[in-house]
Amino acid sequence: MKSHMKNLFADIPQDLSGELFETLLQTSSFRIERIVSNGHCSPKGFWYDQDDNEWVILLRGRAVLRFENDDESITLKSGDYIHIDKHLRHRVEWTDPEEETIWLAIHYQAGNKK
Amino acid sequence: MKSHMKNLFADIPQDLSGELFETLLQTSSFRIERIVSNGHCSPKGFWYDQDDNEWVILLRGRAVLRFENDDESITLKSGDYIHIDKHLRHRVEWTDPEEETIWLAIHYQAGNKK
Repeated sequence: MKSHMKNLFADIPQDLSGELFETLLQTSSFRIERIVSNGHCSPKGFWYDQDDNEWVILLRGRAVLRFENDDESITLKSGDYIHIDKHLRHRVEWTDPEEETIWLAIHYQAGNKK
Repeated sequence: MKSHMKNLFADIPQDLSGELFETLLQTSSFRIERIVSNGHCSPKGFWYDQDDNEWVILLRGRAVLRFENDDESITLKSGDYIHIDKHLRHRVEWTDPEEETIWLAIHYQAGNKK
């Protein structure tokens, strides 16, 4: 089993000129993704408007999220998690330029029972 | 949205005489669970034999896992993740007694495409 173990904070490419999106597990009903940001943010005026629900946790670094239907931005630090309903328009206002920001996201279609 | 944000490393009860299992999100196809161990391990001779597949990541502390079909144990530190197929018999040999060990587990039935 040792060979099957990987680390979420390892194997980060030197060149992070673009954000890194990597699928860790794909099943018929959801997808687990690692996202590595390095000072990246959403382009001016851009809003994510996703077809899937997303449960996302920030595990390293810091980020500021903004939701279109909300006046306030929220700052996420390590361990903070949030549920983003599909088609809830949001953007990443800021990620820490001093270190990588590492996210773990679960994208899914199925109904949220809780 | 601020009120919907929670932290994986917060709200840990003082009394951890038993391991803590907490469902963070339940959908029709998977369940996200937080597990907090505090020096706990599986009882002697006990093997987990689960009906669901499990993708699990250790995010704080340390643990030693053992699989029945494997001679070697594996030590997990922060960020290490592993996939445990359903009915793959395994046990937790050890978790760090000096600090809480915090896991994030995703349990699911659906076929694993990757």
